[in-house]
Amino acid sequence: MKAAQLMGPSLLEINDVPIPEIGPSELLIRVGAAGICHSDLHLLHFPYKMREEPLTIGHEIAGTIEAVGSGVDGRSIGERGVVYLCWSCGQCRECMSGNENMCLAAGRTAMPPCPGLGPEGGMAEYVKIPARSFVPIGDLDFLQAAPLADAALTSYHAIRGAREHLQPGATAVVIGVGGLGHVAVQILRAISAVRVIAVDVGQDQLDLAKRCGADITLESGPDTAQHILDLTSARGAEVIFDFVGIDATAQMSVQAVAPNGAYRMVGLGGGNPGITAEAAGGPGWPWGASVRKSYGGTRNDLVDSIALAQAGLVTVEVARFDLADARDALDRLEHGKVTGRAVLVP
Amino acid sequence: MKAAQLMGPSLLEINDVPIPEIGPSELLIRVGAAGICHSDLHLLHFPYKMREEPLTIGHEIAGTIEAVGSGVDGRSIGERGVVYLCWSCGQCRECMSGNENMCLAAGRTAMPPCPGLGPEGGMAEYVKIPARSFVPIGDLDFLQAAPLADAALTSYHAIRGAREHLQPGATAVVIGVGGLGHVAVQILRAISAVRVIAVDVGQDQLDLAKRCGADITLESGPDTAQHILDLTSARGAEVIFDFVGIDATAQMSVQAVAPNGAYRMVGLGGGNPGITAEAAGGPGWPWGASVRKSYGGTRNDLVDSIALAQAGLVTVEVARFDLADARDALDRLEHGKVTGRAVLVP
Amino acid sequence: MKAAQLMGPSLLEINDVPIPEIGPSELLIRVGAAGICHSDLHLLHFPYKMREEPLTIGHEIAGTIEAVGSGVDGRSIGERGVVYLCWSCGQCRECMSGNENMCLAAGRTAMPPCPGLGPEGGMAEYVKIPARSFVPIGDLDFLQAAPLADAALTSYHAIRGAREHLQPGATAVVIGVGGLGHVAVQILRAISAVRVIAVDVGQDQLDLAKRCGADITLESGPDTAQHILDLTSARGAEVIFDFVGIDATAQMSVQAVAPNGAYRMVGLGGGNPGITAEAAGGPGWPWGASVRKSYGGTRNDLVDSIALAQAGLVTVEVARFDLADARDALDRLEHGKVTGRAVLVP
Amino acid sequence: MKAAQLMGPSLLEINDVPIPEIGPSELLIRVGAAGICHSDLHLLHFPYKMREEPLTIGHEIAGTIEAVGSGVDGRSIGERGVVYLCWSCGQCRECMSGNENMCLAAGRTAMPPCPGLGPEGGMAEYVKIPARSFVPIGDLDFLQAAPLADAALTSYHAIRGAREHLQPGATAVVIGVGGLGHVAVQILRAISAVRVIAVDVGQDQLDLAKRCGADITLESGPDTAQHILDLTSARGAEVIFDFVGIDATAQMSVQAVAPNGAYRMVGLGGGNPGITAEAAGGPGWPWGASVRKSYGGTRNDLVDSIALAQAGLVTVEVARFDLADARDALDRLEHGKVTGRAVLVP
Repeated sequence: MKAAQLMGPSLLEINDVPIPEIGPSELLIRVGAAGICHSDLHLLHFPYKMREEPLTIGHEIAGTIEAVGSGVDGRSIGERGVVYLCWSCGQCRECMSGNENMCLAAGRTAMPPCPGLGPEGGMAEYVKIPARSFVPIGDLDFLQAAPLADAALTSYHAIRGAREHLQPGATAVVIGVGGLGHVAVQILRAISAVRVIAVDVGQDQLDLAKRCGADITLESGPDTAQHILDLTSARGAEVIFDFVGIDATAQMSVQAVAPNGAYRMVGLGGGNPGITAEAAGGPGWPWGASVRKSYGGTRNDLVDSIALAQAGLVTVEVARFDLADARDALDRLEHGKVTGRAVLVP
Repeated sequence: MKAAQLMGPSLLEINDVPIPEIGPSELLIRVGAAGICHSDLHLLHFPYKMREEPLTIGHEIAGTIEAVGSGVDGRSIGERGVVYLCWSCGQCRECMSGNENMCLAAGRTAMPPCPGLGPEGGMAEYVKIPARSFVPIGDLDFLQAAPLADAALTSYHAIRGAREHLQPGATAVVIGVGGLGHVAVQILRAISAVRVIAVDVGQDQLDLAKRCGADITLESGPDTAQHILDLTSARGAEVIFDFVGIDATAQMSVQAVAPNGAYRMVGLGGGNPGITAEAAGGPGWPWGASVRKSYGGTRNDLVDSIALAQAGLVTVEVARFDLADARDALDRLEHGKVTGRAVLVP
Repeated sequence: MKAAQLMGPSLLEINDVPIPEIGPSELLIRVGAAGICHSDLHLLHFPYKMREEPLTIGHEIAGTIEAVGSGVDGRSIGERGVVYLCWSCGQCRECMSGNENMCLAAGRTAMPPCPGLGPEGGMAEYVKIPARSFVPIGDLDFLQAAPLADAALTSYHAIRGAREHLQPGATAVVIGVGGLGHVAVQILRAISAVRVIAVDVGQDQLDLAKRCGADITLESGPDTAQHILDLTSARGAEVIFDFVGIDATAQMSVQAVAPNGAYRMVGLGGGNPGITAEAAGGPGWPWGASVRKSYGGTRNDLVDSIALAQAGLVTVEVARFDLADARDALDRLEHGKVTGRAVLVP
Repeated sequence: MKAAQLMGPSLLEINDVPIPEIGPSELLIRVGAAGICHSDLHLLHFPYKMREEPLTIGHEIAGTIEAVGSGVDGRSIGERGVVYLCWSCGQCRECMSGNENMCLAAGRTAMPPCPGLGPEGGMAEYVKIPARSFVPIGDLDFLQAAPLADAALTSYHAIRGAREHLQPGATAVVIGVGGLGHVAVQILRAISAVRVIAVDVGQDQLDLAKRCGADITLESGPDTAQHILDLTSARGAEVIFDFVGIDATAQMSVQAVAPNGAYRMVGLGGGNPGITAEAAGGPGWPWGASVRKSYGGTRNDLVDSIALAQAGLVTVEVARFDLADARDALDRLEHGKVTGRAVLVP
C-alpha cells in the first residue's frame, strides 16, 4: 500500500509498504481520509531522526473497518469511524475516569502513544489501531470526519473544560482561526450563548471566523488586548482560547483575560505569559484567572464532536489533497496557504 | 479610643482618635481581637504615603456590635461576629453569585475596598463597617475568630476552588506553614482525605504542620520538587497551595504539580513560575495543570470557616499581643518569630 | 393610579388606588408591562380570601424607575429594568451564594415574598419594590422584558440546574409549550446542542415549539413515553422539563427519562410520579435518575435570561392586552386561548 | 472446589464444583474473602428459579490472581485485589466517562452483569472475572477489602454524588447503620466536615454509628422527621442517605430533607416517598430537593474506597464466617444478628 513516510528531518516520501498485520485486540482500518495538523509540520522539521525505521505520519484518521482482531468484541467489518488518538492504557485512574488524554501510564509527560508519532499513522491506505480507539461516525463524510479526531477534539476539550465561564453575556476570545480555531468558533456557537471575538493576523482567517459565526473579528496587533478591554467594560474576556501560543499571544491573553476568567493555551508556540505572584494592583495577570495548557481530549469529547458534526453544527472547512500530494499539502500549510483544514485522501 | 495608625513608610503609632460615627447602613463594632497579616507588613513598608491622613490598619477583625445604623435590619447590639473583608458593591453579577471577592465594581484590579487598606481598619478599640460585612460567630473566642477573617478565609477559598482535585488518595502540598498555611493543613484534614505534605524552611513551622495534621513534612530546598515526585510515583502532587509565592516556590511548584493538577498561588512574593506554551516532553509545566492566583474568599467561605472552627476542626495557633504592642508584634512577624498567627487585643 | 386587584375568590377588579409611597431602601417603578402567569389563575380561584385588603396581583414586571429611596446607592430615575421576583433577605447562607430563590428566611417553605402574592404586584401603573430587586435591561422592549421575570427566569433556572445532562447528542424533552415552555425550547437551543423534543396536547402549541426550534414535536397521549424511548434507542431522554406537572405527565416522565438522567417538575399540577425504591429491573424509575421540583430562579439567572433576549436568542411570543382588559386576558389564558405569554400594558 | 450455590428458592448448598477455566481476557482469582450483602438474601428468597443451573452467589470478592488470560496485559499471578462488580461493556458513552455502573449496554435497566447475579459469584474457592474488573489493594487485609466491593463502593458513590451538599456546617442523615450505613458514616467523616445524624431501630446499630463517628444518633420512630427539623432550625437536613428504602424511611426523608437538598435512596425496600408536583406551601417535599435512586458505583469510586481503607479512615466492622457456614451467616443477617458486615472465608 501507499504511505506518506518521514525518512529524516524535512524528508517526506510516498512509499510502498506492506499492509499492516493486526493482533488479537486490533482493527485494520482502510483509510478514507487523513487530516494534516500543524504538529505534523513540527515533526517534519524535527532536527533529528525520530527512530531507525521510516515513520508513517498522520493522527487524524477516518475510515472503514477492513479486518477485526480475534479477541475484539462488538466491532464488525464495514463499520465507519474515526480513530481516537490517545492510545492510553485504559486501566489507570485517569483512564477509568474518562481522562484518557491524561493517562498515568505516560508518566509526568502525560502523552499517551499517538498514531503517527510513534506507532504508524494514518497517511496511508491502511492503518492498524487498538480496537478501543475506534469511534463510529454513522454516515458522516470521511473528509468531515477525519479532522474531528484532532482539530475538533482538541478544541472541544479546551472549551468543555472552561464551560463554567461560558454563561450568556460572557465573552470568549479565539486566537488563531486555523484548522482548530475555526472549529472552536463553531463549537462555542453551538453549545453556548457567549459573544465570540476572533483574533488573527490574516484577513482570510478573519473572514472564515465570520462565516463560522464570530460576532467580532480583530486583526492581531499591539493594541489587541486594549481592544478586548474596551469591548468588555475594561474587565476583560471571561475566557481566551489561544491556538497560537507565542509570546505575543500569551502576553496579550494575560492582559485581556478577566479576573476569575480562564486562559487556555492550546497552540504550542512556546510563548511565555510572564505571570507572577504579585498583588493585582497593576495591569498584569488578574486575581482568580487560571492559565492552563490543554492537550488533546477524551474519547467522550470525540463522541460529542461527532454529534456536533452530525447535527450540522460543526462543518470543517476542508482543503482536499490526494495522498500522493502530501508533501505539497504540508508546504502549503507551512506557508499559510491553507484555509481551514488540509485533508488527504488515499 | 486607641488605634494603631500608619503615619508614613515604616511608621506605626498608637494614637488617640475619636470613636467613628456610623451612617444608616453601618455598624459600630467594639473590637475583641484583630489579627496581623503579612500584608500589614507590606503596607507598613510601602515606599510612599498611602493618603493624606493617618490610616488605622487591620483587616482581621472580631468583635461585638456596639451600635446599629438606622437603616439596618436584622442586627442587634451585643451580637458577636467577624468582619468580612471584601466591602463589595453587592449588586454586580459577581456579587450576585456570591463571588464578592471578585466584585465587578473594583474593575480589572478586582480588589474591593478592605478595612485597613483604604477604609479605617480594626487595630483599634472600635471600627465602623458596612452592616452586610458582619458575620455572626456565636460564642467562639475572639482570639480564634479574628484570624478566620483572612487566614482561614483565604486558605479555605483556595482549597475549595481546588476541591475537585482532593479525592481520597491524592496528594496536596502546602508551602509555607505560617498564619495561613497552618490553617490550610487543618482545613485539608477536615474536608478531605488527601495526603498532606507540608513544606517550609523552619523546623518550628514543620513541627506546627505536624501538630495540624500534616502526613509528611519537608524542609524546603533545591530537591523539594524531586522529593515530591519521589513520593508520587514521579507523577507529581494533584494540588499545591503556595503561601509564599517567590521564584523558588513557584518554580518548584511547576516542577512538582501533576498533569491535570492545580497550582494555587496565595502568597504574594512576586515569584515567576516560568511557564511556557511548549509541548510537555521535558521536565516543565505539565499538560492540563492550571495555575491561578487566589485572592481572599467569599462570604460563604467565611461562614464555612467559622463552622470549621465551631466544630473544633480548625484551631488557630495564636500569639497574643496587646494593641499597645502592635509595632512589636509586627517586628516579630517580620523576623519570623511568630508561630501561627499574631493577634492584637485592645 | 389604576390597578388590577383581587377582591375575593374569582373576583378581579380594576380599581383607582393611590400611588405607593416608597421607603428609604425602595424604588418606585412606572410599569411598562406586566406578564400574566398561570399562577395568577391559581390565585384568582383560590377558595378563600388572601387577606383583609384587596391585593394588586402581577409578578412579571418591567418598567422605569420613577423615584429612588433616600438610602439607595447606584440607581437613578429613568433607568429601565425588570423586577426580580424573590424578595429575599439577602443575608442568609443561600442568599450569600446567589440562591435567593431558596432564602433561608422563608423557612422550609422556601418561598421568599413575591410581588402580587403578598406585597402589592405589578398589574398597575406603579409598583414599589426593594432596590436590590431591580435588574437593568438596557433598551429591551418592555413587552419582551416583562416575561423574562418569570417565564424565562424559571425556565432558565431549571435548565441551568440540569446543564451537566445537556451534552451534544443528548435529548431534552419539554412538556407543555405555553408561556414557559416555548421560552425553554429557545433557551435549550441557545445554550446547548441537544436534540429538543416538545410535547403538548394542542397543535398551536406544537407549531409554536417548531418556530422556537424544537427538532421533534409529539402530540401528548398514552404512547408518548414509548415514542420517546423509540427515539432514544430505548434508553430514555437525558432530561425532561415538565411545565405541566399532572399525574399523566409525571408518570410519563418517569417512564421516559434515562438512567442517570434528570426529571424536573416546574408545572404545579400536583402530579404524582409514583416513584419507589425498588430495584430497576422493571419498566419504572431508572437508576440514577433524579427528580426535582424547581422554583423560580436566581438573580443571576435573570441576568442571563436578559442577556439571551438582548442577543436575540430568546424572543417571547407575546399576546398584548391593555391593563383594563386584565380579566379578559386571564379568561383567555384559562381557556387555552393564549399562544405564548399574555402581557398587560398600563 | 467448594462453592455456595443457590439451588432454588431459599435453597443454598455448599457444593463441589470444578475450578473455572478462564478465557483470554479473564483472570482466575483465588478467593480470600467474600462479603454477604442484603441483596444475597433477596436472591435467596426470590420466588422463582433464576436459571437452569445452580448459581454460585457472592459479589463482594477479594483475593489473589491465580491465573492470567493469554490476552491480558499488565496483570500478574500473585497480585492481590478486589473485584469491581459492574461487568460493563467498557465501550459505550457512560463507560467511556467512567460511569460503568450506568453502562448503556444494559439498556434502560442499567444493571450491567454482576458476579453472583448471572455470572458465577465469589462465595467459592475460585472465581473467574474479566481482567478489567480487577482493582489492586496492596497489602490490605482480605476481610477488610471484600466489603469495599459493594458496601463501601455503593455508599461512597451515593455520597460522592451529593458532595456539593456536604459543606462545613451542613447536616447529613444516614438511615440504617448496617453493612453499608456504618461505612457511610465513616466516609462522611473522612471526606467532609458535616454533622452526621445516624438513624436506626436498634441500639447495637446506633452504638456502631457512634463508634464510626456519628455526631448524633436517633432511634427511628414516628417523630424522627420532626427531630431532624428541630436539629436544623426547621429547615431540614442538607442530605439524607437512606440505606433502608421502605415507605416509612422514604416518607420521613421527604419530610426532613432541606429545600435544595438531596435525598438518596440506596436501600431497595420498595418504599414510596409520595412526592407530588404541588406548590411547597405545606409540609411536603420542598422546592429544589432532589430524589435519586443510587446504584453501585464507578471503578474510580472503588479506587477511592480502597484509598480510604488504606489510610485507616474506613474500617469495616466484620463478622467472620467460614464458607461452609454460608447458610448460617445468611440466616443471622436475615434476623438482624449481624453487626457490620458478614464476610465468608473459603
